Amino acid sequence: MIDKRKNDHIFLAASPESQIGDSWLDEVVLVHRALPELDLDDVDTRTTFLGREISMPFIIGAMTGGTELAEKINARLAKAAEELGVPMYVGSQRVGIVKPEARRSFEVVKANAPTVPKIANLGAPQISRLPDDQLLRWAEEAVNMIDAAALAVHLNPAQEVFQPEGEPYFKNVLDRLRFLKRSLRVPLIVKEVGNGISKEVAGLLNGVADIIDVAGAGGTSFVVIEGLRAKEARPELYELAQEFKGWGIPTAAAICEAKAAFKGPVIASGGIRNGLDGAKALGLGADYFSASQPLLKAALDDKVAQAISRMLKELRIAMFLTGAAKVQDLRKAPKVF
Amino acid sequence: MIDKRKNDHIFLAASPESQIGDSWLDEVVLVHRALPELDLDDVDTRTTFLGREISMPFIIGAMTGGTELAEKINARLAKAAEELGVPMYVGSQRVGIVKPEARRSFEVVKANAPTVPKIANLGAPQISRLPDDQLLRWAEEAVNMIDAAALAVHLNPAQEVFQPEGEPYFKNVLDRLRFLKRSLRVPLIVKEVGNGISKEVAGLLNGVADIIDVAGAGGTSFVVIEGLRAKEARPELYELAQEFKGWGIPTAAAICEAKAAFKGPVIASGGIRNGLDGAKALGLGADYFSASQPLLKAALDDKVAQAISRMLKELRIAMFLTGAAKVQDLRKAPKVF
Amino acid sequence: MIDKRKNDHIFLAASPESQIGDSWLDEVVLVHRALPELDLDDVDTRTTFLGREISMPFIIGAMTGGTELAEKINARLAKAAEELGVPMYVGSQRVGIVKPEARRSFEVVKANAPTVPKIANLGAPQISRLPDDQLLRWAEEAVNMIDAAALAVHLNPAQEVFQPEGEPYFKNVLDRLRFLKRSLRVPLIVKEVGNGISKEVAGLLNGVADIIDVAGAGGTSFVVIEGLRAKEARPELYELAQEFKGWGIPTAAAICEAKAAFKGPVIASGGIRNGLDGAKALGLGADYFSASQPLLKAALDDKVAQAISRMLKELRIAMFLTGAAKVQDLRKAPKVF
Amino acid sequence: MIDKRKNDHIFLAASPESQIGDSWLDEVVLVHRALPELDLDDVDTRTTFLGREISMPFIIGAMTGGTELAEKINARLAKAAEELGVPMYVGSQRVGIVKPEARRSFEVVKANAPTVPKIANLGAPQISRLPDDQLLRWAEEAVNMIDAAALAVHLNPAQEVFQPEGEPYFKNVLDRLRFLKRSLRVPLIVKEVGNGISKEVAGLLNGVADIIDVAGAGGTSFVVIEGLRAKEARPELYELAQEFKGWGIPTAAAICEAKAAFKGPVIASGGIRNGLDGAKALGLGADYFSASQPLLKAALDDKVAQAISRMLKELRIAMFLTGAAKVQDLRKAPKVF
Ligand SMILES: Cc1cc2nc3c(=O)[nH]c(=O)nc-3n(C[C@H](O)[C@H](O)[C@H](O)COP(=O)(O)O)c2cc1C
Ligand SMILES: Cc1cc2nc3c(=O)[nH]c(=O)nc-3n(C[C@H](O)[C@H](O)[C@H](O)COP(=O)(O)O)c2cc1C
Ligand SMILES: Cc1cc2nc3c(=O)[nH]c(=O)nc-3n(C[C@H](O)[C@H](O)[C@H](O)COP(=O)(O)O)c2cc1C
Ligand SMILES: Cc1cc2nc3c(=O)[nH]c(=O)nc-3n(C[C@H](O)[C@H](O)[C@H](O)COP(=O)(O)O)c2cc1C
Repeated sequence: MIDKRKNDHIFLAASPESQIGDSWLDEVVLVHRALPELDLDDVDTRTTFLGREISMPFIIGAMTGGTELAEKINARLAKAAEELGVPMYVGSQRVGIVKPEARRSFEVVKANAPTVPKIANLGAPQISRLPDDQLLRWAEEAVNMIDAAALAVHLNPAQEVFQPEGEPYFKNVLDRLRFLKRSLRVPLIVKEVGNGISKEVAGLLNGVADIIDVAGAGGTSFVVIEGLRAKEARPELYELAQEFKGWGIPTAAAICEAKAAFKGPVIASGGIRNGLDGAKALGLGADYFSASQPLLKAALDDKVAQAISRMLKELRIAMFLTGAAKVQDLRKAPKVF
Repeated sequence: MIDKRKNDHIFLAASPESQIGDSWLDEVVLVHRALPELDLDDVDTRTTFLGREISMPFIIGAMTGGTELAEKINARLAKAAEELGVPMYVGSQRVGIVKPEARRSFEVVKANAPTVPKIANLGAPQISRLPDDQLLRWAEEAVNMIDAAALAVHLNPAQEVFQPEGEPYFKNVLDRLRFLKRSLRVPLIVKEVGNGISKEVAGLLNGVADIIDVAGAGGTSFVVIEGLRAKEARPELYELAQEFKGWGIPTAAAICEAKAAFKGPVIASGGIRNGLDGAKALGLGADYFSASQPLLKAALDDKVAQAISRMLKELRIAMFLTGAAKVQDLRKAPKVF
Repeated sequence: MIDKRKNDHIFLAASPESQIGDSWLDEVVLVHRALPELDLDDVDTRTTFLGREISMPFIIGAMTGGTELAEKINARLAKAAEELGVPMYVGSQRVGIVKPEARRSFEVVKANAPTVPKIANLGAPQISRLPDDQLLRWAEEAVNMIDAAALAVHLNPAQEVFQPEGEPYFKNVLDRLRFLKRSLRVPLIVKEVGNGISKEVAGLLNGVADIIDVAGAGGTSFVVIEGLRAKEARPELYELAQEFKGWGIPTAAAICEAKAAFKGPVIASGGIRNGLDGAKALGLGADYFSASQPLLKAALDDKVAQAISRMLKELRIAMFLTGAAKVQDLRKAPKVF
Repeated sequence: MIDKRKNDHIFLAASPESQIGDSWLDEVVLVHRALPELDLDDVDTRTTFLGREISMPFIIGAMTGGTELAEKINARLAKAAEELGVPMYVGSQRVGIVKPEARRSFEVVKANAPTVPKIANLGAPQISRLPDDQLLRWAEEAVNMIDAAALAVHLNPAQEVFQPEGEPYFKNVLDRLRFLKRSLRVPLIVKEVGNGISKEVAGLLNGVADIIDVAGAGGTSFVVIEGLRAKEARPELYELAQEFKGWGIPTAAAICEAKAAFKGPVIASGGIRNGLDGAKALGLGADYFSASQPLLKAALDDKVAQAISRMLKELRIAMFLTGAAKVQDLRKAPKVF
């Protein structure tokens, strides 16, 4: 069952059908600087993440685990992450905790990416009803499984509503996050999965999350994906999902809302498809950017390193053409909307 | 004659041709709340209407009566209203007053929906020239015919202009409404039929109507319907109607205008096609929402309960995803336009 | 030669090719009034023009004269004007002054419309170089030829530029207008021909013109018409005209500019195609509205009275639906843009 | 090699594929003046450039040199420049400096346009690493080669990034420009090549450049041209260029930014395709306007004089219809955006 769901997620996410809406990043324009006062080779994209140097402010998005295909994808993502010096998330690890035989599909990440920062992953509904001790055990298992530098908890209420086997349980989530923040030895990241984090939610997360990842609308839509999964067996769920397929905060708006309300670092994601999108996100104030679907497609083609290299080149060019020698200079680059 | 007109109205209203314009509800966006802090099951859509509890702030729109087909539709609507615990309007009752044999088509509503609040209905032009005693007699007959909890008077000047047998008489309407307000033992609702109520009119109705129903543009258009009815016999009337087919205040605008100027409860209607539209209307400040055409189509298919259930599910989801545990919380949910 | 030009103007103006751009009247929305507090029959469209009562604030636009076809058109327009009680312009009368045999094509207007106000017409470039005495003689001849209640002088610099036989002479025009204002026994109207009057020009005309007619862009375009006339013999003129086909002030903007800067009555024209457009123009503050091309087409079909009657009906409906009992009430009706 | 590149540039630039984006000049509207108070013949387009009278404020854009085809084009451009009394730029002269046999392709300009102001041309990346003495020698050679009245240095960072043989070296450019300003006996012009000059860069150039040429986005795109050149041999470069094809500041925006920040004269260019575009640019505050691609196409057809004459006629008409007797009056003409 979980196997089938995970693989469905992968194939539907890789298809253009699941990519909808508008991240609003096309409306953000970085202003050309005719006189960059530097050579292209002077552009330095390096920065640090969780205390370690990385080659650019980019993180491979949270995707998968739990199946054979997931294992292969995770291994490929991890190899490229290590080769190019970028951090990576894994997908939700509940399956790895409750099904020991699924663990290997996550452990390959540790094996193939020993030095870059890795991020463990759990879902908010799945932890919302766990008592303190069990929650801490789950969190520690998830972290240890991949030798993670941080734990991410994803908030996905829209996905849970339209998922045939969904668990739309969000009572106590804030309380459980506060407990994790107090008890965990690694930093806590709170993320969405494609519907975005508003300024109200970002504000609530101050003092609770160390980092937030907005995962806004405009790229992979789990409302659409779960709707498509339900289409045959539960057509009325598919139709409900259709009404809500535009639901969510466009990524560019979510970045601005999150930066305005949250005091820590913000990761931009959701429909970021190239390094120019990434540069715009950084220009809007994000500290890092992340992408999932393009790397999923690259992993299926065994071309992850090429995809990340191209992302890096595009970021370098955008920095050069705005006269940004260092990543943080992008924030000062003039922009128009 | 009236028979033919009523049935024409039904078939033309059920066809997509009669659905035109834009309610502007698509421009209203409820902001996603990644952290609802409640379970989907915690969402409570119940509220009260005219002192009675109803299962959601939704009212079946005013439609029909007077013919055999109308009787069947009214019976189906009433059954579903009773089953699901929502109020319902009936269509204009003049025919039931002046033609005793037409009464049954309204009385089925009382028979099939004994407990939910029912709303009687008369047209402003038809009452504008009635002296006090006759007006009171008509109003009481209308109320008694369906055991109504309120009487609605509809304002439909645009429809009367383009209706081949139209009665564009709106002099004294305000005076007649004041008389009804003073003399009637049930509350008075004043509604449009698809061209909307402006802030000027909403202001005039303070102290006159207990509740107003904006019935704005963006759904069923009676300018279009009457134009189509005239097409063969009076082509010049059809052409005049074409020039005016965009006439009217989009529902989202009408809600804002009405709430700004009217002190009592406001019902949103006109082009509301699902529970997400309804949630947006409530988010804009409406107290209830109503729909006609989608329920007419459902009644013709004998699927009214399904249509209302789906409306309810969509409302619940929109409430969950904005973190609204109760209906009135929607009003505080952040929105963007 | 003039014969051919006049007839070319008629046939090109009647074709949809000559109708371009956007009057912006579609952006002006009169707000529906659900409670008009009057019957449709109470609407009174009558007003006065040049001291005489007319049946609605509408004027048949300035068009033609000088040829046999023009004579027929003028006769038909005049008959309908008289029948329906609306004023009318004639086309430029120079030809009638310099060619005695052309006079009849204007005199039919006097014969067929003895009582309604008629407006004589001369072109600014044609009078710009006339000395005082000759100018006065021309003006008086034009007025007497049709027993005119006013003389209109048209400003048409864009037309003259692209007209193969054009006379782009606008030096001294203001001086010649001042002389006419001083010397003429009838009021002076200054009008454009489809490119609009700006607030700067409207301001200059204070104290010079008694009335101005904005004749804005969005209907008949003489830049296009003259370009099409030049197409074969002078293709480079046709191409120049193509570059400038969007030139001009949209009628809705011109009305606002003219009302803001000019102290006397303002006639709205240019792309007004029905009584709803007319109502919008009056709503924006115009005192009268006028149309040319639709009446030209009606005249060619011998259906002028029908066209004017429909215009009147549309105006009445727009007044009813905004609760305007009298023409000047339209100005107070709420509008949105 | 350089031969091939130069000819590729010519053929790709002449094709519509290389013309992309939007100069925003279509959004700028010059307001029609119904009463110009002048005759078309009174319009005077003459002005001065670098101290010499020219027939209109127009400059033939910087294009080519170095090949046989370039020589032919330069000769044709020069002949027309001389015939019609307008200044002209030449293309980058490095090739003429380092390859003596290429010199003739520039010298034809001096031979065919002895009296009008000519502008020499060098690229910023090519001079960024030259020591003082060599830089001065290059600049003097470039000026002498065509008897130039000014030297233009072009800033083209986006082109260099996507050019297969590109030199993205912009460190020290400002310093080298300052040296030229101090040492050169002719005025210094700094220009872009189609991505525009922002207010930040315009501000930096105060006291450094005598004149700036914004060369904004909306016409010829060298990002596109270099991408197309790379398509076969380096497909990944072509794809990178595709991501950036919208990069750059639209010309109308660049004019406003440059005028706001730069104290000297500003040349408007980038997508200016006729004299009406030119008039709009002057209306926005530019002192001169320039076009390249339309003249390149005209040169290939041997119709340069006709193209410039048409540009002149369009400018005259725009001046007449805004009541501008002299070029500087355009700046006071009302405009809307
Ligand atoms: C196949 C797939 C599986 C995903 N699974 C998870 C998950 O388990 N946990 C999680 O936090 N996010 C998950 N996501 C969401 C992504 O992390 C990301 O927020 C979302 O896809 C939007 O980014 P994108 O538009 O770049 O794909 C998944 C995404 C994809 C494409
Ligand atoms: C077939 C039909 C008949 C209607 N008859 C009446 C009526 O008799 N009285 C009334 O107040 N409204 C009447 N209406 C108008 C509706 O109450 C409602 O205001 C309008 O249809 C706009 O809502 P909708 O877009 O959801 O259809 C009728 C609507 C339909 C579709
Ligand atoms: C065939 C034709 C001839 C015209 N001739 C004149 C004319 O002689 N004098 C004048 O002032 N306007 C003339 N006009 C311009 C009209 O008066 C009016 O300003 C213009 O057509 C815009 O209005 P419309 O869009 O309703 O046609 C003429 C218009 C047409 C269609
Ligand atoms: C074929 C071609 C070659 C060009 N070469 C140069 C050059 O050598 N130096 C330069 O400053 N600009 C050069 N340019 C850029 C133009 O000067 C101008 O900035 C750009 O083409 C935008 O103007 P347009 O849209 O009118 O073509 C060239 C343009 C073209 C079309």
